[in-house]
Amino acid sequence: MTTTVITNIASLVTNDPTLGDGSPLGLVQDAALVLDGDRVVWAGPAAQAPAADQRVDAAGRAVIPGFVDSHSHLVFAGDRTAEFNARMSGQAYKAGGIRTTVAATRAATDAELSANVARYLEEALRQGTTTFETKSGYGLTVEDEARALRIAAEHTDEVTYLGAHIVSPDYADDPAGYVDLVTGAMLDACAPYARWVDVFCEKGAFDGDQARAILTAGKAKGLLPRVHANQLSYGPGVQLAVELDAASADHCTHLTDADVDALASGNTVATLLPGAEFSTRAEWPDARRLLDAGVTVALSTDCNPGSSFTSSVPFCIALAVRDMHMTPDEALWSATAGGAAALRRTDVGRLTPGTRADLTFLAAPSHVHLAYRPGVPLVSEVWRRGVRVA
Amino acid sequence: MTTTVITNIASLVTNDPTLGDGSPLGLVQDAALVLDGDRVVWAGPAAQAPAADQRVDAAGRAVIPGFVDSHSHLVFAGDRTAEFNARMSGQAYKAGGIRTTVAATRAATDAELSANVARYLEEALRQGTTTFETKSGYGLTVEDEARALRIAAEHTDEVTYLGAHIVSPDYADDPAGYVDLVTGAMLDACAPYARWVDVFCEKGAFDGDQARAILTAGKAKGLLPRVHANQLSYGPGVQLAVELDAASADHCTHLTDADVDALASGNTVATLLPGAEFSTRAEWPDARRLLDAGVTVALSTDCNPGSSFTSSVPFCIALAVRDMHMTPDEALWSATAGGAAALRRTDVGRLTPGTRADLTFLAAPSHVHLAYRPGVPLVSEVWRRGVRVA
Ligand SMILES: [Zn+2]
Ligand SMILES: [Zn+2]
Repeated sequence: MTTTVITNIASLVTNDPTLGDGSPLGLVQDAALVLDGDRVVWAGPAAQAPAADQRVDAAGRAVIPGFVDSHSHLVFAGDRTAEFNARMSGQAYKAGGIRTTVAATRAATDAELSANVARYLEEALRQGTTTFETKSGYGLTVEDEARALRIAAEHTDEVTYLGAHIVSPDYADDPAGYVDLVTGAMLDACAPYARWVDVFCEKGAFDGDQARAILTAGKAKGLLPRVHANQLSYGPGVQLAVELDAASADHCTHLTDADVDALASGNTVATLLPGAEFSTRAEWPDARRLLDAGVTVALSTDCNPGSSFTSSVPFCIALAVRDMHMTPDEALWSATAGGAAALRRTDVGRLTPGTRADLTFLAAPSHVHLAYRPGVPLVSEVWRRGVRVA
Repeated sequence: MTTTVITNIASLVTNDPTLGDGSPLGLVQDAALVLDGDRVVWAGPAAQAPAADQRVDAAGRAVIPGFVDSHSHLVFAGDRTAEFNARMSGQAYKAGGIRTTVAATRAATDAELSANVARYLEEALRQGTTTFETKSGYGLTVEDEARALRIAAEHTDEVTYLGAHIVSPDYADDPAGYVDLVTGAMLDACAPYARWVDVFCEKGAFDGDQARAILTAGKAKGLLPRVHANQLSYGPGVQLAVELDAASADHCTHLTDADVDALASGNTVATLLPGAEFSTRAEWPDARRLLDAGVTVALSTDCNPGSSFTSSVPFCIALAVRDMHMTPDEALWSATAGGAAALRRTDVGRLTPGTRADLTFLAAPSHVHLAYRPGVPLVSEVWRRGVRVA
């Protein structure tokens, strides 16, 4: 393989606390990074960098690990512009909500769905995201859920089965029958394409017992659990996630002290999704409370056409700092190493020997600028597996 | 001149209520736009478009007027990353505040300042801003203020003399002496380069009497007034602005009923700058109260390294909708036609026969997506005076 040394990096976030300033970010000023093919082989001060076959000048930009967006819903068709416009304009609107997206998704061709996924992943890539999770959940039939996952798997390794997004409108009078389907024939059809099983544990969606049945059935088929938990109200989701050793409890907007204690004592990451609170004018999750309790926090977009149609991790970082009182350092960590932890990955989200050469260059001298310069497209270059892709 | 027809525009914002849906946005669906050189000569439904020498396919994108950013502070050197980081991280930090920027600006060469202005204007242009106002205010000596305005005038026609940004540290013990300078020798040196005179009317900066003296002196030299008013506290700024027929009262965060009444009865635009409230965690201006009272509202970035280091009008639109309760239509109008009104311009901010061909193409079918998809860089192409520039 060809080795490459990237020099003249104003500041480098490694997320390796044995490097640089010894903080969780492992921040190195005046840094260099050496790649061998698709891997990082060296990170540290430029003055100590080993020689390499070729040299790239970062021209005083900051380099950070590519973002790991561990929560999105990208297999869908149509959008919900009119519903959003009416909600934000205070107008009455007979919104179909998620059912609108389910109908549009079922009606779409495979090619249309695949093109949509590709478009949004490309959009995310240009904004610095090099690892993405995405889900089913707008099919809600055996065939449509399996199709969604098959299509998702063509684009990313991190695929989540979310047949339990809502009770299918086809089972409005028989929610127990829908849970049987989700844990039976639908699971059988979906498991081959997915790594994860997820459930929307919420009033009006799936209660604690149903969520437990769905996650347990998924585990028995070799899927790893993650949970949409405690978004709209208090509930059993977070503690269930910890009990089942889910990789992540996502949203975590309404937490009791017992929920926070459970997260702090287990291996489940709390994934915060401020794009959802932004786009629905909801109250912010209390990131400080979680961080101060020692919980591992991830930050993701929740990109979906209903409640959070942003693919921008930099935007989520700015919100996390402004409205969730994370420090710029914490927000950056959560959007990279935190996202990796929420996917139980150690090969991404860090830039240290052995990790994947997934890097994002910023048109700024430090990662702090992602919060200091909100909304400005600061991602100037993106590499994945050692190759420039944006 | 060569005429150009742009077809296949999913939706076109003209800001001409005689066109399209008859709303203030003059929204035309399935639209075309015809340009003759640097001017718009026709706007309307694609099916009725006249022939032209050449044809451009908008490919289903939305087209809006280029943003008119009527409030920025771009003639500066250095940045204040450490100060921002400490503020948002809850750490004590002996911040020099604006004095840090004054010192860095004075120490910079002309070439450095000019390159900085060019860089931020280019960044704004890529985000769809085709008309920018910018100010002095980090020099605070006769020589440094005049230099700032001379450099600004090399980059834009909308140049504002803000010698009265703060009392110069050199006059800490003699604020009256500084007002004499600002209204005397400094004004004489600055007036040739500026169109506008501005003052920061605020406790700790300039009081109502000082502000009146500064604006009146500027008017006597042919400059048109605008005012930094009622940002951090209640005060006389807004009513003074209306009394002196200022084009705009900027910030308007703390308003009495009498302030709102004054704005509603006069010709002064209320320019809201939500980037400042975002980056300082301050309370939001009440845009709804102003709009409901019939006040003309503009939306701008306030781009500056201390309190609002964003150049992104799309970001300000998303905040205006989410946090200031403007509708997506109102926010778009305020960032285009509203900005033009705040600069007393009718040739920009609209796309209707006779206006400048300053247009922004969105990678989305409607302007609503600027709020619906917050943080996503949706500006895909920018034309100024009929020429593609980004
Ligand atoms: Zn979700
Ligand atoms: Zn200002």
